[in-house]
Amino acid sequence: MGTIRHITLPAGFSAAGVVCRIKTSGREDLAIIAASADVPAAVLTTQNQVVGEPVKWCRRIMPRGFGLARAIVINAGCSNVCTGKAGFADAREMAGLTARKLGSRPQRVLVASTGIIGHRLPMAKIRAGIAAAAARLGTENDRAVLRAIMTTDTREKSAVVQSRIAGKKVTVAGIVKGAGMIAPSLATMISVITTDAAVAPALLHKALSDAAGTTYNAVTVDSDTSTSDTLAILASGQAGNRMISSPGADFRKFTDLLREAARELARSVAADGEGATKLIEVAVRGARGDADAKIAAKAVADSPLFKCAVHGADPNWGRIAAALGKSAAKVDPERLTIKIGHIVLFDRGGPKKFDVKKVRAHLAGKEIKVDCDLGLGKGCFIAFTCDYSREYIAINADYHT
Amino acid sequence: MGTIRHITLPAGFSAAGVVCRIKTSGREDLAIIAASADVPAAVLTTQNQVVGEPVKWCRRIMPRGFGLARAIVINAGCSNVCTGKAGFADAREMAGLTARKLGSRPQRVLVASTGIIGHRLPMAKIRAGIAAAAARLGTENDRAVLRAIMTTDTREKSAVVQSRIAGKKVTVAGIVKGAGMIAPSLATMISVITTDAAVAPALLHKALSDAAGTTYNAVTVDSDTSTSDTLAILASGQAGNRMISSPGADFRKFTDLLREAARELARSVAADGEGATKLIEVAVRGARGDADAKIAAKAVADSPLFKCAVHGADPNWGRIAAALGKSAAKVDPERLTIKIGHIVLFDRGGPKKFDVKKVRAHLAGKEIKVDCDLGLGKGCFIAFTCDYSREYIAINADYHT
Repeated sequence: MGTIRHITLPAGFSAAGVVCRIKTSGREDLAIIAASADVPAAVLTTQNQVVGEPVKWCRRIMPRGFGLARAIVINAGCSNVCTGKAGFADAREMAGLTARKLGSRPQRVLVASTGIIGHRLPMAKIRAGIAAAAARLGTENDRAVLRAIMTTDTREKSAVVQSRIAGKKVTVAGIVKGAGMIAPSLATMISVITTDAAVAPALLHKALSDAAGTTYNAVTVDSDTSTSDTLAILASGQAGNRMISSPGADFRKFTDLLREAARELARSVAADGEGATKLIEVAVRGARGDADAKIAAKAVADSPLFKCAVHGADPNWGRIAAALGKSAAKVDPERLTIKIGHIVLFDRGGPKKFDVKKVRAHLAGKEIKVDCDLGLGKGCFIAFTCDYSREYIAINADYHT
Repeated sequence: MGTIRHITLPAGFSAAGVVCRIKTSGREDLAIIAASADVPAAVLTTQNQVVGEPVKWCRRIMPRGFGLARAIVINAGCSNVCTGKAGFADAREMAGLTARKLGSRPQRVLVASTGIIGHRLPMAKIRAGIAAAAARLGTENDRAVLRAIMTTDTREKSAVVQSRIAGKKVTVAGIVKGAGMIAPSLATMISVITTDAAVAPALLHKALSDAAGTTYNAVTVDSDTSTSDTLAILASGQAGNRMISSPGADFRKFTDLLREAARELARSVAADGEGATKLIEVAVRGARGDADAKIAAKAVADSPLFKCAVHGADPNWGRIAAALGKSAAKVDPERLTIKIGHIVLFDRGGPKKFDVKKVRAHLAGKEIKVDCDLGLGKGCFIAFTCDYSREYIAINADYHT
């Protein structure tokens, strides 16, 4: 049998995932992803005003969102949020222990934690876990790494894309867990991307921000932004391409490559939303601007009524019109067109006769496409979400803190 | 057995509710509430950019939101939204037919419709219904009136409050249906208030707007603003008080009385939200201003994760902190205090040890109180909502358009 490879596929990375018994399930719950030297890195963190201590640590060591990093250490089962100064010291200790094992400095190690809010990390377990993971670093543990960062995720989510930049083969690989999902309590989206491309830290950050805008930031499972969202990228530079240090053609190529991987990961997160049975893409075009398009698309993607209708395969375009109308984006029903699965249901001010069976057949599938043309301009945005099922309520109501 | 009285309790009003077979259930679905003359009236309508034709009619006859009215005619089962010019003509015809029966003018009759979006009204049934209702107008039909405006509501929701204004007994009575609830498709909040107070139209509108700000506008069941929300008040003036035509002491007394009725109705709407098993009050205090407090309170009240946690009686304060933090209101965890049922769970930056059993016992009740002190200023707001249950998903996923 072959070995699953993703996060260590770009040259210059090793990783390990181990069981240190933070999760009650006994599954892997601590991972280290390490570069072979201190390499360019960038990190994006949650927009929530309440932020986890690991997020504070990442911001402390990378105040502008980029710099050099040797590794990222991640645990699941406890998010180390709302734990105060002691919790921050725990995050710093995780970085310090990992750095010592790798022969680097604490300031070169990013930290991410996911799981319940308001509890201290079990540091004895964490210390043992970091020692075990550091001892096992290699390129054959990618699957254990991915399992170690999962919480209520039902699928392992990874993506690998390759392309040539200035004649050199460049690989971008990423893994992701969660996204608006919660378990046991409010959990987080954590995603790590590795690449062998040579990219200067500031440009790496710019590429990551650009790519995230239409991918990770286009996902909504339940509109509840987590306190711990963390997206990190490490670039080993071993592809041998000329260092990308200005926003020219190579930078654009790299950003496109990164966006492709990010889009794949973001879609997989929406598809695996808690209780989800379908992936939904809500495209809004013809908005007054891209910002308006994003607001409108998110309003539909966040509408509980819309998400329930899709779950029931009900071609209820009225809920789409109402969600657009309630949003802060400019909407004029007289110019609005709504399609589900390429079939027009509402055409500039009036309902259109449509083949209900055909629309239901599309809605009964696994990937649902909704297209809203606002008819007002050139702005467009695609949001990714999932349907709401009884399972979502079950997951989030029946768990006890 | 006595007769249920509410909407016709203030002197000078009569009403009727009849079956005209728009609802497939065969229950009452058309109502007229009439004053004995053209009287001061005010109306507030939805903020949604997609609005129903009846809302357009109300705005046409009362462009500033107030004026004189003889009656309001209401139907359930079909909301007459997204039906274009023909739908507007239908709304106008409803007003015209009602006006003729009452000896008034179409411009004196408000119209409200609730039910499915995108379908024309069955006008033959409506015409017969208006004739039947007009023939039956009286003060013994209040219950049939209330049933006629209900859709998925599980309870009849009304309120009556009385007080003395300038030595005269004044009565304010109101009925309400829905609110963010939907069935069979996106439905609406419709509320009608009658009073025997003598109040000039412009002041009536001001009092209604003031009262709605902290009552109707504080309710959220699922964050989905309807296309048809309509709140109307008619004031017969038969209490014999000196006409309120300026914002002095009598106006303030009347507004307080109106707010009391509105608050009762708004709370009853939240408590009867689709699938709801509990009424939740989310109080935010210590915000930088009242506007910030409202944003923060609504963020919690709209959070699916929080609403699921309450459904499961889970004292998950982390979800409250996260919902506050994701909002556009200024929040600083170091100054934040969170209480559930008067018990402190999170105290300025750190979790507090609390009696889990006590908090669970409160959460297991029917009325849940959450109190968030942001510690930043004097702004406060209380939002009303309900929990999310499997039943909410069932109601909204299993219905087919």
